[in-house]
Amino acid sequence: MQRHFEENLNALKEKIIRMGSLAEEMIQKSVRALMERNPSITQDVFDMEREVNLLHVEVDDRCVKLLALTQPMAVDLRLIAAAMKINTDLERIADQAVNVCQTCYYHLLKETPVPQANIIPRMAEISQSMLKNSLDAFSKKDIELAKKVLLQDEEEDRLKAETLSELIELIKREPDHSKQFVDLILIAKNMERISDHATNIAEDVIFMVLGVDIRHHIEEKRP
Amino acid sequence: MQRHFEENLNALKEKIIRMGSLAEEMIQKSVRALMERNPSITQDVFDMEREVNLLHVEVDDRCVKLLALTQPMAVDLRLIAAAMKINTDLERIADQAVNVCQTCYYHLLKETPVPQANIIPRMAEISQSMLKNSLDAFSKKDIELAKKVLLQDEEEDRLKAETLSELIELIKREPDHSKQFVDLILIAKNMERISDHATNIAEDVIFMVLGVDIRHHIEEKRP
Repeated sequence: MQRHFEENLNALKEKIIRMGSLAEEMIQKSVRALMERNPSITQDVFDMEREVNLLHVEVDDRCVKLLALTQPMAVDLRLIAAAMKINTDLERIADQAVNVCQTCYYHLLKETPVPQANIIPRMAEISQSMLKNSLDAFSKKDIELAKKVLLQDEEEDRLKAETLSELIELIKREPDHSKQFVDLILIAKNMERISDHATNIAEDVIFMVLGVDIRHHIEEKRP
Repeated sequence: MQRHFEENLNALKEKIIRMGSLAEEMIQKSVRALMERNPSITQDVFDMEREVNLLHVEVDDRCVKLLALTQPMAVDLRLIAAAMKINTDLERIADQAVNVCQTCYYHLLKETPVPQANIIPRMAEISQSMLKNSLDAFSKKDIELAKKVLLQDEEEDRLKAETLSELIELIKREPDHSKQFVDLILIAKNMERISDHATNIAEDVIFMVLGVDIRHHIEEKRP
């Protein structure tokens, strides 16, 4: 029984890791589609989303069955609870990569290229690294790495603010390209959202390992 | 034991409903802050976020304890699994209202008013109605109402596309107000995200009641 349970738990972890690496590749490809102005890469991302969606349903199903059939305690229970949440975040990360590709496919790749698109890869690099670190933290139960992700999120927020100001200045200077610049703003928002999801994953890892909920303990500064 | 369990489950549901009504009020107030150009309303929203955050941690804690101590089966297990997810969505909805208020407080209310802000309440009205319907569906286990939310999301998506095109046209016509129009675009995105979370809640309600995962069954159209 115990061995069977361990096997099930490992299979669950593997599914999560698989989803994570798909999501990572989808982010990478979505930025390549934008930079190389290559619509066929967007198609790859749309295809990959199907596998992520299947895994999304499968992971939730496995979690509910594991809870029902094995009635796990303490750390195992926290692992399953964390897996359910991480599953949601990974699916939404994949969605964001799909959104980037939709913006490229339906809009940006049909319009005059704006050279300033190179603002995006800087943000994408951090998002992708945050996702990678949060998943490594999950698979190695590495608290320090999870905490690193929380710091990276602050960097991403700063970069997003910079990106937005830059793009607004560009709009003022070249209003004829407003549509393209607004599309880049939406893509910057997609990257920010990916980082937010990676942060959620890191917080879930900390809860899973320590049994301590660190969310909202450091309140963001409000006026 | 059974009675105690029922009481715990009811207390959990009440916490969710309380979070939901706070989130609903926060959306409403965030739009009022924008339209009435009233920074003191933004402060109310920042204060309300504290209660949402406390509830967020408490609901998760209750769910994990209920799973550990009572080892629920079938429909009760699905209710607790759904509660964990709905909890996450409600906290993120509240975050979106906070984001709207931050955009107002730090930017929009400090700049020349742009009359076109009235594009936003149309979207906010649908988001708020979707949230209300998804929570009513949760508390009454009402599948039909949950399905209605999925249809409302399509309406919101159409409205968002319209709003974005309108704002891009405005930017082209009045590039000096680009900053304000981009802020309105970000607020429109906040509203869209609230609707997405309400849609997730509706899908969780359907899973909770029927035990059937309807997500991804109707694949969105991709090129």
